[in-house]
Amino acid sequence: MESNSLIHGGDWAGFELEYGSPPLDFSSNVSPLGVPESIGAAVAEAVRTADRYPDPLCRGVRRAIAGAEQVPVDWCLCGNGSADLIYRAALAVRPRLALLTAPTFGEYGAALELAGRRIAEYRLRSENGFVLQEDFLDCITPETDMVFLCEPNNPTGRTTPKPLLLSILDRCRETGTLLVADECFGGFLDDPAAHTLAGLCSAYPNLLILKAFTKLYALAGLRLGYCLCSSGQLLEAMRRTGQPWAVSAPAQAAGIAALGETEYVRRTRAVIQTERPRLAAGLRDLGFQVVPGEANYLLFSSSAPLLEPLRERGILLRSCGNYSGLDGSWYRTAVRTAAENQRLLTALRDIRKEGNR
Amino acid sequence: MESNSLIHGGDWAGFELEYGSPPLDFSSNVSPLGVPESIGAAVAEAVRTADRYPDPLCRGVRRAIAGAEQVPVDWCLCGNGSADLIYRAALAVRPRLALLTAPTFGEYGAALELAGRRIAEYRLRSENGFVLQEDFLDCITPETDMVFLCEPNNPTGRTTPKPLLLSILDRCRETGTLLVADECFGGFLDDPAAHTLAGLCSAYPNLLILKAFTKLYALAGLRLGYCLCSSGQLLEAMRRTGQPWAVSAPAQAAGIAALGETEYVRRTRAVIQTERPRLAAGLRDLGFQVVPGEANYLLFSSSAPLLEPLRERGILLRSCGNYSGLDGSWYRTAVRTAAENQRLLTALRDIRKEGNR
Repeated sequence: MESNSLIHGGDWAGFELEYGSPPLDFSSNVSPLGVPESIGAAVAEAVRTADRYPDPLCRGVRRAIAGAEQVPVDWCLCGNGSADLIYRAALAVRPRLALLTAPTFGEYGAALELAGRRIAEYRLRSENGFVLQEDFLDCITPETDMVFLCEPNNPTGRTTPKPLLLSILDRCRETGTLLVADECFGGFLDDPAAHTLAGLCSAYPNLLILKAFTKLYALAGLRLGYCLCSSGQLLEAMRRTGQPWAVSAPAQAAGIAALGETEYVRRTRAVIQTERPRLAAGLRDLGFQVVPGEANYLLFSSSAPLLEPLRERGILLRSCGNYSGLDGSWYRTAVRTAAENQRLLTALRDIRKEGNR
Repeated sequence: MESNSLIHGGDWAGFELEYGSPPLDFSSNVSPLGVPESIGAAVAEAVRTADRYPDPLCRGVRRAIAGAEQVPVDWCLCGNGSADLIYRAALAVRPRLALLTAPTFGEYGAALELAGRRIAEYRLRSENGFVLQEDFLDCITPETDMVFLCEPNNPTGRTTPKPLLLSILDRCRETGTLLVADECFGGFLDDPAAHTLAGLCSAYPNLLILKAFTKLYALAGLRLGYCLCSSGQLLEAMRRTGQPWAVSAPAQAAGIAALGETEYVRRTRAVIQTERPRLAAGLRDLGFQVVPGEANYLLFSSSAPLLEPLRERGILLRSCGNYSGLDGSWYRTAVRTAAENQRLLTALRDIRKEGNR
């Protein structure tokens, strides 16, 4: 089958083609509450005039984001999902040497390979609960032009302790390194405001913060991400690494509508905060080793294969076998609603039982 | 003002911010009939499930395109508008030397600059009506890894005679050159089937044809383009030069719906076929030099500046001053409906009168 490697998650579209109905998808990490209601009307309105090119400057949605983030509008650049901005950042910087953790989100490495330079990997250890340690600082040298940190990390769900994060930021400033802090899942933390680096953009022009509407507002299909940075030079360089019309008109309209969805975000956070520990406990009860994730997903390991038996039961999970630093015994599951999580746990219990027979 | 250079056309969004209402936009070359009716329902349906990532393989829309184009599905790759595919092609090939015409669509050059190699320009001459001549063949050497040809060309509206086009394709095969034939405006020609190279993909794996829904179906805001090529290796390389989720779920759904809009396309072509000569005659009557364009837009020159006086009258035109090979005396206008074209001609007549006073 062609381009299988493009399919990171559970391939709901392939499932639908095979079974004729949608799966219960734990393979992608989005809010379990579905697309917020206001989005439909906003997109419908945008489609009426979609014979026009989208505003390449994304003026409306950037103004809304800047208001929500309390930053100047020109510190904000929008992309066709945050993935678009990852590629743009790599192509704009073209780092001689870039530093990544392993495991982490695979698109950093893919984008850096396209930009054609060397990549160094810092191995996160299972025995440390996959939490970044102080020795990460030693890996940042004057040759390191770029560091990607995913906070919380995908697929581990772990955050770096704030004091260490600040030391990394200082170290990066000393070495002339751009720190890309990917906070796309930051909104799912119990206390997002305590962990974000957004307030430090002014003091650190070497800080680029990535955010997305994809996850917290369940808009993965619409493609809208943004970044915050006080270096106008970097943002301008990023604009030039791709087409001017990357962000569609529906995505721009959806972003403005989404920022009004404060009650939706409150409910999403409440579900995750309640269900994450319950799902983790349920997985542990079944004998799986579960990493104490802090976001809307959990990394766990299983000696028996889970993907196919779950798929046969209509459930998609994310195998982490293609993450550098993990192997096929690791799985990532989204945290969804109580009833959905229960369906997953029941299916896993059945699979275990069958395996023991 | 920031990033002005990103604004290629008339900047309808900036106009709306300034005047509070939309302009009459002749600066972008899309069907004047607006977004087809079926698109609204298709997008609304797609938005309901837009909490899912878009299918990275675009299976549904690629199957529909392959059916319409009568090619195998795996010869077809979709992009976030055809502009996305221009950047992907340049990054996949990374040509030592690429050949462009001047003038032509600016994104070819921008993408090639990002890919970091040399660009040779073949100057199209006003005295030849901006039509490509036989000596273009001499510019294609074994060092030329890539040629971009826009057919019909943007902003001239001219096509290359089919026999010369075929000679170019043969020459490119001899020299190991990829010919990118951008047929995004091909649907507006009087006889699209006679001019397209689509039937030659099988015989020429060095041929990449670009097409878009942007123009013929007036879906510029939704972002959907595609390319056809029989080289699976090239398409796979293009997939790897960017994120896997470049094409949004609404764009994929809109593409499938658009391919059912045969009556819309028929009406669009009829309007363009009737109005193009009328608008050209009207412009000539006003004393402008008009290039005999064959698509849904016309290139003309004016000794007096037109942009600002038209803008004050609520009308946007495309200045061609930033096209290599043209200067600020050249303008491109879309061909729109009879009433709209008349508004443009009346405004131009008024401006001329004022200028003569």
